[in-house]
Amino acid sequence: MNRYWSKQVAALSPYTPGEQPRDQHYIKLNTNENPYPPSLAVATAIAGYEPDQLRRYPDPQSTDLIEALAGYHDLDRSQVFVGNGSDEVLAHAFQAFFRQQDPILFPDISYSFYPAYCGLYQIEYRQPALDKEFCINLQDYATTNGGIIIPNPNAPTGIALSAGEIRQLLADNAESVVIIDEAYVDFGAESVIGLVSEFPNLLVVQTFSKSRSLAGLRLGYALGQEHLIEALQRIKNSFNSYPVNQLTNAIALASLADEQYFQQCREKVMATRKRLAGDLQNLGFEVFPSTSNFLFVRHQSEAAENLYRKLKSSGILVRYFNATRLDNCLRISVGTDEECDALVSALGEILP
Amino acid sequence: MNRYWSKQVAALSPYTPGEQPRDQHYIKLNTNENPYPPSLAVATAIAGYEPDQLRRYPDPQSTDLIEALAGYHDLDRSQVFVGNGSDEVLAHAFQAFFRQQDPILFPDISYSFYPAYCGLYQIEYRQPALDKEFCINLQDYATTNGGIIIPNPNAPTGIALSAGEIRQLLADNAESVVIIDEAYVDFGAESVIGLVSEFPNLLVVQTFSKSRSLAGLRLGYALGQEHLIEALQRIKNSFNSYPVNQLTNAIALASLADEQYFQQCREKVMATRKRLAGDLQNLGFEVFPSTSNFLFVRHQSEAAENLYRKLKSSGILVRYFNATRLDNCLRISVGTDEECDALVSALGEILP
Repeated sequence: MNRYWSKQVAALSPYTPGEQPRDQHYIKLNTNENPYPPSLAVATAIAGYEPDQLRRYPDPQSTDLIEALAGYHDLDRSQVFVGNGSDEVLAHAFQAFFRQQDPILFPDISYSFYPAYCGLYQIEYRQPALDKEFCINLQDYATTNGGIIIPNPNAPTGIALSAGEIRQLLADNAESVVIIDEAYVDFGAESVIGLVSEFPNLLVVQTFSKSRSLAGLRLGYALGQEHLIEALQRIKNSFNSYPVNQLTNAIALASLADEQYFQQCREKVMATRKRLAGDLQNLGFEVFPSTSNFLFVRHQSEAAENLYRKLKSSGILVRYFNATRLDNCLRISVGTDEECDALVSALGEILP
Repeated sequence: MNRYWSKQVAALSPYTPGEQPRDQHYIKLNTNENPYPPSLAVATAIAGYEPDQLRRYPDPQSTDLIEALAGYHDLDRSQVFVGNGSDEVLAHAFQAFFRQQDPILFPDISYSFYPAYCGLYQIEYRQPALDKEFCINLQDYATTNGGIIIPNPNAPTGIALSAGEIRQLLADNAESVVIIDEAYVDFGAESVIGLVSEFPNLLVVQTFSKSRSLAGLRLGYALGQEHLIEALQRIKNSFNSYPVNQLTNAIALASLADEQYFQQCREKVMATRKRLAGDLQNLGFEVFPSTSNFLFVRHQSEAAENLYRKLKSSGILVRYFNATRLDNCLRISVGTDEECDALVSALGEILP
């Protein structure tokens, strides 16, 4: 604690992103990046971008992009909010909706940024425990609360709720905003965007980072009824008028227009995931049912931390969480078939 | 107020950016954008950017860019923080340093985003009045406070304090963080970056938006001693791990490396400013002494709002503030010589 810091700064528990080492080349299966490049339309958008435009401020309303996203998801433009990565969108949403009297709820095993947001905005929270199979028990959420946020599929487990289960959650919590964080939804889970018009308490958050291979671009968005989007805009316009820069805007539009490639990449990742899951099971791993672009696994005998370290020595990065209940598990991003084969081969040598 | 909003959302007074009309082509002298394109090195960086990199998350520490900025300003890398525009950097700084017991201080006429940040973080503030000539009276700041922020040169007046005056302000307020917002400093005012090592309470904020012609890129940064930068990092890592996207990083590095072009653009803007100031004085305007890329002016007889409207009808945008003490003034960004000539010519026809 420094005498110049505001009181809350010292109390923060900042998020720790997955390592992005710069010392050597790794097979990176640790941060859920897409193994395939972004759409060729992205390359075209970059090549065709006129640099002189950069001297102008962006459109503060990101009108073109918001209209394109509204069209893509069959919503009204008043139901779309964009930001500098879904992390920023989530941060604004926590501040906009979650400073209520009662604690908010999210699973004890979940995206580890949520507690960091709570620290930033001094929001109380409770974390109902996942069951032994790492599943969410929805009855834990049938209690007074100041809001709910659930990643669907959950991270780092990869396990999804059905749209029907989320519908029930929304109905049971009509007085609370329920945020469904669909960062990984494009790899096989059911989106609840279709419920936006029905539920005034639903905010869906998505990102271009995973299924659109644009983690380096930082573009996320939220979908919800107009009164929720208006609250996000009020926060954003008190924080940064122009969070989405001009090039990001142009690139996101290009990516969104290439539906065929988007579908191809999703399919390839899901096919590789299936193959990798089988290979890992053959190596003695318990593989939890994933509808995301990663697998959450636990080996029957070998400690996860050892495996993480030995894989790193072999030039392969996976994510190890040094945290209660997670410390015997690994989260492995689905790479290309070749990358996954290299992983399986390395594990074959490491395991007894 | 909506039942789903947190209490503070309804109370916010969001910032209103200058208009960016999309309906027709204007000579835009309303948002202090640079009239010259960014460095050719920027175009080269964009053309040479490999789109496949976008599938990876950026370096969360922005190591390369922070090292380059540290080198450029002759500071240590631990003294540099980067963000998604100086608006984001300022927002984090308000949260990091300004939630103290006493109200913070900034001029009554100043960057109109500051009160919006105070609303966002529930920070109390007082606004000592500029004098009749729109100058800051530093004695107003020799009082108990929870922090001070001053744009230097001030906006929308364009009037600067000297580095010696700011040194005194820092010495008189050793217990408070003093933020000097140098968004416009490259057009003739004295930077206080040289005081960073001496004053543990000084944070300097700069931007690539104006002097580097990169408003559309959104890159801002803060310079200060390590304990201040650490507080900003703690906030940032509780908000968004990767605020600076990969392309922005590459473009900013390119811009920073082209010192010659940077100096040329500054000089051209300052030369045009001098010429424009003379022309406006000849048309009956009082022109306040500017060290920024805009002029703050007041006509001896014609109402500012009328001038704003008539200029807009003529296809020229300037900034009119419908606010106490400002409602007889206009802020005019310095464009190219040709754009400024067009403005002077239009004013010649409008004025009696």
